[in-house]
Amino acid sequence: MPRWQPGARERLQATTLELFAEQGFEQTTVAEIASRAGLTERTFFRYFADKREVLFAGQDEFAGLFLDHIATASPDAEPFAVIMRAVRAAVTEFFPVKRRSFSRRRQTIIDANPGLQERELLKLAGLTEAMAAALQRRGTPEPTALLSAECGVTVFRVAFSRWVEGSEDRELVAILDDVLGEVRALTAVT
Amino acid sequence: MPRWQPGARERLQATTLELFAEQGFEQTTVAEIASRAGLTERTFFRYFADKREVLFAGQDEFAGLFLDHIATASPDAEPFAVIMRAVRAAVTEFFPVKRRSFSRRRQTIIDANPGLQERELLKLAGLTEAMAAALQRRGTPEPTALLSAECGVTVFRVAFSRWVEGSEDRELVAILDDVLGEVRALTAVT
Repeated sequence: MPRWQPGARERLQATTLELFAEQGFEQTTVAEIASRAGLTERTFFRYFADKREVLFAGQDEFAGLFLDHIATASPDAEPFAVIMRAVRAAVTEFFPVKRRSFSRRRQTIIDANPGLQERELLKLAGLTEAMAAALQRRGTPEPTALLSAECGVTVFRVAFSRWVEGSEDRELVAILDDVLGEVRALTAVT
Repeated sequence: MPRWQPGARERLQATTLELFAEQGFEQTTVAEIASRAGLTERTFFRYFADKREVLFAGQDEFAGLFLDHIATASPDAEPFAVIMRAVRAAVTEFFPVKRRSFSRRRQTIIDANPGLQERELLKLAGLTEAMAAALQRRGTPEPTALLSAECGVTVFRVAFSRWVEGSEDRELVAILDDVLGEVRALTAVT
């Protein structure tokens, strides 16, 4: 068997989601995933540290996109504008409509497992901190940097949860702008 | 030894924080906590399910305050106004200035341990969902209810993190109103 299997990563991801959906996260073993994908366990571990990482492997890449966009933003842009532009650019690249079906299946699995939810929340908290640090490197004072990052991540989370719901057919970036408009309207009237 | 020790709960809490701060969360056992507090392990377990619960025992009470205030809000109040009034009322009751030293020490311990951070994030996510559900029971449509709750919890989290920082001496509720004002200003310019 060759060391590198063309399409093996995607096949392992699809098979993993399939098995998690069929029999639950806890009950699924790496041996089963590899066997159903027609690959060896060794091949699995070439791509993922463990079965949980199949669900979270993309997040570092996504965080990297975000941070690149913050780092390269115009030096005189307002902090929250920088964050929102980075969010729009990152979701446009990372969450095209064709990815929605994967994201939906993934979300169903995470929502069913408190341990996976905790992992997801911790990853998002880490992203928030990294975004705030990136703003501080541009000269934004810490309190404003943190608040801008928290608000940006809140808008992203709410928009993302609408996007993975059954009733939404629009691009994530369009939903994002809706949510931002709603935040403005909501907070204006208190 | 009597079944009920006056002040035992507070003594166990103080001793637990002390030991966590001295030697870390993982390294501390219930036996050590009970021994230093001059109580038995059985007494400890009468108040807390495990050592982790000492850090999180107050959160259900805090969530209850929040939800009571949402349930009893004026029927024609705007959803986000309902949330923010509930946040203000709950923090005024639950986080008086005299509680800040405890909250600070607790936060230092949580920040040092990813497992505790995950637990804290999951509790806050649960609170957000419960707040959104309380708004829906008042007739707020689900998307607005969720977004109002997410924004309210974001404002709370940021204000709380400033409150437990060394440099802040004001009441939490004053910081809360600052943060809300900043959110309005930030989101207005994008």
